[in-house]
Amino acid sequence: MADLEKALEKEVSRRSFLKTTGIGLGVAAGALVFGTGMVGAQAQTGTVAEAPLPYVELDPEEARLRGHAGYYQAGCSFGAFYAIASMLRDKVGGPYNQIPLRMLGYGRGGFANWGTICGALNGASAAINLVCPDADTNKLVAELLGWYTRFPFPSAEATAIGVAGGFKYTTKQYPKIELVTSVSDSPLCHASNAKWIAKSGFLLPSPERKERCARLTGDVAAKAVELLNAWKAGKFVATFKVDDQTAGCLSCHAEDQEGKMACVSCHEPH
Amino acid sequence: MADLEKALEKEVSRRSFLKTTGIGLGVAAGALVFGTGMVGAQAQTGTVAEAPLPYVELDPEEARLRGHAGYYQAGCSFGAFYAIASMLRDKVGGPYNQIPLRMLGYGRGGFANWGTICGALNGASAAINLVCPDADTNKLVAELLGWYTRFPFPSAEATAIGVAGGFKYTTKQYPKIELVTSVSDSPLCHASNAKWIAKSGFLLPSPERKERCARLTGDVAAKAVELLNAWKAGKFVATFKVDDQTAGCLSCHAEDQEGKMACVSCHEPH
Repeated sequence: MADLEKALEKEVSRRSFLKTTGIGLGVAAGALVFGTGMVGAQAQTGTVAEAPLPYVELDPEEARLRGHAGYYQAGCSFGAFYAIASMLRDKVGGPYNQIPLRMLGYGRGGFANWGTICGALNGASAAINLVCPDADTNKLVAELLGWYTRFPFPSAEATAIGVAGGFKYTTKQYPKIELVTSVSDSPLCHASNAKWIAKSGFLLPSPERKERCARLTGDVAAKAVELLNAWKAGKFVATFKVDDQTAGCLSCHAEDQEGKMACVSCHEPH
Repeated sequence: MADLEKALEKEVSRRSFLKTTGIGLGVAAGALVFGTGMVGAQAQTGTVAEAPLPYVELDPEEARLRGHAGYYQAGCSFGAFYAIASMLRDKVGGPYNQIPLRMLGYGRGGFANWGTICGALNGASAAINLVCPDADTNKLVAELLGWYTRFPFPSAEATAIGVAGGFKYTTKQYPKIELVTSVSDSPLCHASNAKWIAKSGFLLPSPERKERCARLTGDVAAKAVELLNAWKAGKFVATFKVDDQTAGCLSCHAEDQEGKMACVSCHEPH
């Protein structure tokens, strides 16, 4: 993972963060002094404060590239967390340098391949929580999940990058092709993968399916950055609403269950 | 959250860690010097290494108390993560002092109340990932989820503590009563809550349902510590196997979906 960090930080970033800020290149080599000149950075000794960490506007397109690359290193959950947290290391440094990025790897394949929550949502949500107060975290995470359930992955942006060979990993093993899109109707890895596999015909172990999830990871990281940028600018507005059928269910079942997942994806209407 | 830390570290711990080790009390006040005398602690400057952090054997019963208390501060996901990570702060310190514990709060109610993965599983899994290499993380997290799906929550241990008033929160609002148990057959918050609510008759907003999830959070943290202790001692053996019906499904559907969740909880057999 140390080599991973070095490789990713050096190679993935095709944008100008590092040059612009003049920091970040040293991070990979462990040479950056903690909290160098960063507003809001916390004291190095003692215990980190239990408060949101400083956020600065990030580039969603850089997040898309890093999320894709991170997927091939340690999976979807790591990939999405790495994308956002590594950019915050570059631009803010300080406390972000002390959070092990590998910590979010467990979410891969919906928690150690159990197929529960999509790992990209897990990694991105952890990054959101790092910078937002709890109440805002709830709003942004809920919006991210809602958006995910209706978005046709992979995005047109990811497809364009992928076909053009613009991702870090575009060898034979990481196909440089257009992939069909699918809508999951669910935030769960299981449903997301099953629907895409059914539509594409590419099975779980195929390079095409992995590339689909790599692009999805980048897409989720990019969307999370868009939400965070809007929130930081005071312009975030939640738009997700459950569908009419689910709203109908919830009119009776608001208090005997927890959740916003579409009911009829598992239950028969009655 | 700073007050939370101070309060929890001071009040929750009814065991002897702090006295035994002679550290920990200072942690809450932010006075402990980073890495004090701890084997394996990492240098404070630069960037934390992307490697598993040191683990020492922990007390599952202390995890049960802290998980329960943490639930009432910031939810199930924070509670389980706090339980384990705060004990590692006490016993190891160093890099654990720099990881914001509030970061895992987003998992509450299955991700911002979406009802996906049980938040206690999320917080505990993040703690497992902090100390285990990726391959072992996958094994322990998969085992924890498998165990969860078949365990009648809340545990007899939690019930005994709860009825005796042994948890930190045992006011009128946090009932000191015996609660019926239920098996979720699923690692999802939605199914876990719905089954317990159906069996108990206590609705989602009730203090009884919250107390059930608080005890469950402690139980999951305690189980995770048991798994970690066994792993540390070289004695961890995975025992979870999918049920026969699911195994039958997977004999055809191993490669067109991701996951180990019981198929017939959502799908009709065919």
